[in-house]
Amino acid sequence: MFTKRIDHIGIAVKNAQEKLKLYRDFLGLELTEVEELPDRGLRVYFIKVGDTRIELLEPIHENSEVSSFLEKRGEGIHHIAFNVEGIDEAVELAKAHGLQPLSEEPKMGAGGTRVLFLHPKTTGGVLVELVEGEH
Amino acid sequence: MFTKRIDHIGIAVKNAQEKLKLYRDFLGLELTEVEELPDRGLRVYFIKVGDTRIELLEPIHENSEVSSFLEKRGEGIHHIAFNVEGIDEAVELAKAHGLQPLSEEPKMGAGGTRVLFLHPKTTGGVLVELVEGEH
Repeated sequence: MFTKRIDHIGIAVKNAQEKLKLYRDFLGLELTEVEELPDRGLRVYFIKVGDTRIELLEPIHENSEVSSFLEKRGEGIHHIAFNVEGIDEAVELAKAHGLQPLSEEPKMGAGGTRVLFLHPKTTGGVLVELVEGEH
Repeated sequence: MFTKRIDHIGIAVKNAQEKLKLYRDFLGLELTEVEELPDRGLRVYFIKVGDTRIELLEPIHENSEVSSFLEKRGEGIHHIAFNVEGIDEAVELAKAHGLQPLSEEPKMGAGGTRVLFLHPKTTGGVLVELVEGEH
């Protein structure tokens, strides 16, 4: 497996429009896509920056993927995703390095990508996502 | 002012060597520099990834810049730094967008860079650093 770049930085927000003052108006970054993901209870805003993206994760209902995070921690950085090649090796390789995958194999992600998460207790408090493919 | 890329993602850690299992050994990223910053109470590990860097912030004493963060929150993502041009406009521009700078003008950063922080209460829980220059 090897890592190409940071795919995105996921940031949990209550109101994404409000955050565009920072990312679009102040930093001058480009909002490239807004996507509704009913299965995950999210509306996702992608903001391009260099070779990576900020991903604003806004809940569309109370049982969204970020709702408990927002309740416990408030708004803030939720995860870092690394774009990799060779994700099929990731589960075994992670275990060999004392890192705990959150599933026994990569799952389907957005746009035909494949993704795997690592438990933050084994990574120094960072929810790490691996992504293979482009979206 | 405009933003070129993410300069680095700052991650507070208790033991940086231990985190190299994730970043160097598992993700295959390159540790490019280790720097001791006694004034800030930190040893800083720079890890290259695409056009940006992970910056591991390890305290070298109990009054370091990340000690209270580590006590309150534990290890985890501490800040995101954006590499910008035109940082002299940043203080006024931030205020005009309802964002609160942590100083009235940019300060000297490492390697001759100039830096400015924005208060996380005004950015959606993210400690935002602006950096002008290359280090």
